[in-house]
Amino acid sequence: MSRIVVIGGVAAGMSAASQAKRRQPDDDVVVLERGPYVSYAACGMPYNIEDPARTLDDLVVLTPADVRERGIDLRLRHRASGVDSGRRVVTVQDLEVGTTVEVDYDALVLATGATPVQPPIPGLDKRGVFVLRQLTDGQALKQHLAEARPARAVIVGAGYIGMEMAESLRSRGLAVTVVERMDQVTPGFDPVIAALVTDALGRHGVSVETGVAVQAVEEAGGDGLTVRTDRGCLPTDVVLVAVGVRPRVELARSAGVALGETGAIAVDDGMRTNVPGVFAAGDCAEARHIVSGRPVWIPLGTTANKQGKVAGANAAGATEVFAGVAGTVGFKVFDLEVARTGLTATEAASLGIDVVTAVSRQPSRARGYPGANPITTTLAAERGTGRLIGAQMAGVGVVAKRIDVFATALAAGLTVEALEALDLSYAPPFAPVYDPVLVAAAVARKRLQAAARKEAAAVGRVGR
Amino acid sequence: MSRIVVIGGVAAGMSAASQAKRRQPDDDVVVLERGPYVSYAACGMPYNIEDPARTLDDLVVLTPADVRERGIDLRLRHRASGVDSGRRVVTVQDLEVGTTVEVDYDALVLATGATPVQPPIPGLDKRGVFVLRQLTDGQALKQHLAEARPARAVIVGAGYIGMEMAESLRSRGLAVTVVERMDQVTPGFDPVIAALVTDALGRHGVSVETGVAVQAVEEAGGDGLTVRTDRGCLPTDVVLVAVGVRPRVELARSAGVALGETGAIAVDDGMRTNVPGVFAAGDCAEARHIVSGRPVWIPLGTTANKQGKVAGANAAGATEVFAGVAGTVGFKVFDLEVARTGLTATEAASLGIDVVTAVSRQPSRARGYPGANPITTTLAAERGTGRLIGAQMAGVGVVAKRIDVFATALAAGLTVEALEALDLSYAPPFAPVYDPVLVAAAVARKRLQAAARKEAAAVGRVGR
Repeated sequence: MSRIVVIGGVAAGMSAASQAKRRQPDDDVVVLERGPYVSYAACGMPYNIEDPARTLDDLVVLTPADVRERGIDLRLRHRASGVDSGRRVVTVQDLEVGTTVEVDYDALVLATGATPVQPPIPGLDKRGVFVLRQLTDGQALKQHLAEARPARAVIVGAGYIGMEMAESLRSRGLAVTVVERMDQVTPGFDPVIAALVTDALGRHGVSVETGVAVQAVEEAGGDGLTVRTDRGCLPTDVVLVAVGVRPRVELARSAGVALGETGAIAVDDGMRTNVPGVFAAGDCAEARHIVSGRPVWIPLGTTANKQGKVAGANAAGATEVFAGVAGTVGFKVFDLEVARTGLTATEAASLGIDVVTAVSRQPSRARGYPGANPITTTLAAERGTGRLIGAQMAGVGVVAKRIDVFATALAAGLTVEALEALDLSYAPPFAPVYDPVLVAAAVARKRLQAAARKEAAAVGRVGR
Repeated sequence: MSRIVVIGGVAAGMSAASQAKRRQPDDDVVVLERGPYVSYAACGMPYNIEDPARTLDDLVVLTPADVRERGIDLRLRHRASGVDSGRRVVTVQDLEVGTTVEVDYDALVLATGATPVQPPIPGLDKRGVFVLRQLTDGQALKQHLAEARPARAVIVGAGYIGMEMAESLRSRGLAVTVVERMDQVTPGFDPVIAALVTDALGRHGVSVETGVAVQAVEEAGGDGLTVRTDRGCLPTDVVLVAVGVRPRVELARSAGVALGETGAIAVDDGMRTNVPGVFAAGDCAEARHIVSGRPVWIPLGTTANKQGKVAGANAAGATEVFAGVAGTVGFKVFDLEVARTGLTATEAASLGIDVVTAVSRQPSRARGYPGANPITTTLAAERGTGRLIGAQMAGVGVVAKRIDVFATALAAGLTVEALEALDLSYAPPFAPVYDPVLVAAAVARKRLQAAARKEAAAVGRVGR
């Protein structure tokens, strides 16, 4: 019998522990979780917070009792404070009683997750200022909404958590302003897609200020706050800071585990780190991007679950492989669905991949069918080969599950010509005869052909 | 300048004519259409009929004037009565004035479509008995609904037109009974999927009788009708016969054009028939199935449009290729979406493909998110290789656009293992962490592994 220790008990950690126990029922599987919860659906927090009738506890997937029933030695409120990877020992603080013990391991899985970026802005410690990462963060915010009954909110950061929370707080009746330092919302999405997000926010009464830097959060008398920016002051009652996350890698570093270029833990396809016996998975770890072949850091629940499974299996002696990520990300903001997969044209260019881009617009359903709305697609394809490199979509309708077709095409290395020939489902309630996916591919194929003709003509001119 | 004649002016025919004219603007492109309309969205008829406020004319995509503006010589109410492929001449009757003329061609595109199967049941000529194929059929039915105000309908045939019309007529307040000769609704779908369709019909107040043969339609006094079956009599006011279609190939046959095993026109990848200069496209023609590699006849609007484009381009001298079909079909009945792609286990078996099947059930959205409902998936994968062979899905939620992921996987020849590794979009409003597609692939992968182990064990026993 050997012992597998998992540090972190949310998506990746619990997947790892469950998988390890399933593979090696006789092994001792220990989960160290510094918080009071394990295995909760963090992505559901914005929607839960929106509904006063629900409690955040609804998001708990497995109770501690469930976990222990699986034969896992779960230690809640236990913080791993150090790893001696030579002796294979984790130093663990019991946060309840204050004692420190050493736990030895044969295999260790680091599933330490990510932590919200706290920008160097004075006043983020004020009452009424929140982040949203752990279940306890959500509980604190939701309790504040119920008790202080704030009327106004400022969300700092227009990433997808910011967008989801804009919807959530607006739906609870707050006046919401989103402040973003970059010159568009949802950085990482093409401007034409971001413009549709801005439009959706506006249609639903959310103010958006881009290209604005927050300088301080100040008290404004009573329970009020002021968000001071380089473009003026925003009076508010609540501030949500959602400017992204960074990987929690302090423990890894202390254990001599190498980080990658992204700053997250470098892993191989089996989620092994450079240190023998030490694995990493989830939001603290990198993943290989299937389009570029390079390590990337795109912290997401789906990836965390899948990586956790592989790390747990391999910690238990298996040789499973994580297939990598396509960079698929999706979110909903009010009635608008937004999603992307693969590389943007900008990302491709920075990797030396020469792409042609195409923008198209096609209804989500057959003309005349109720709820037929335009879906906008941007598509990047490799010049010369025609291989799909990435796609983004936004519209009021089924968008994310259409992006999945592109994600599948990326995994298979399909060209836009092959995409255009796909036999996709059609009936008036869910697609026009030519699905937006097919139209996007057709437009890209034509742009590739035009580019090739132009190139041939240029070569001809040079030759003359 | 040469002349391209297209027989049939709906999906395939208009696509062919438009494409030909675009490729060769100086060519003479003639469309012969026996009906009074061209280019209408036939698939929209059930939804249009459902809504008394709309007229069937809404489904017309291009008016005759639009078509003529494209420089196409459109001849409505002109019936092609014969083709002499030796002399390259079509005999054409002007149904308005009764004259017959000969039109010669350099290239001919047969887009004659399909015609409803009229089962040998006495009484199908009675007032109140309808089929639904052409726009004029829809107009006749809709007018009857408005004028005769029938209270009861019997739909003969539980294919997807029957299902869509059950919803349509039920939504208009009629008491609807569906009668199907086979022992399940939607033949061509797996029984577990068909059971969900039956359930949806029942939940919405539609009676379903399977394994019942209609023997006659009789007058029952007043405007009433009686549908006599081998299991008793059904009193009704309206009967819709929707027992499928057959390809219209009389003209092709007269021209010496060879039919395939399916009874539809045999074509190559360029939509060429065996007769030089004669192409065929749409519901009258076969297509290559990308999984089996065999010719199939699956008449659908999407295929008709795509084949028409290829036929038109090639009639104009190009060498375009139609990539084939995956057998993707989808429909909605009330709140249930149903779709399939690829081969069923039964179809695979008949082709000598040894498959393992898997049934799975996974919510459409994250647990706790409003509208999270189970989606049922059946999946067939090739024993040994693990290659995806086909999939079917049904559920209240996004189903058809999930089937598209399987359709893409079929085109790329992916295994279920590769499917399981896909980086699909995830956020609570549109998927659980493990999308139904991924769960279906995982269940299939496990069943394949179990089958392989069983086989290995059997070999071991034999070897002993």
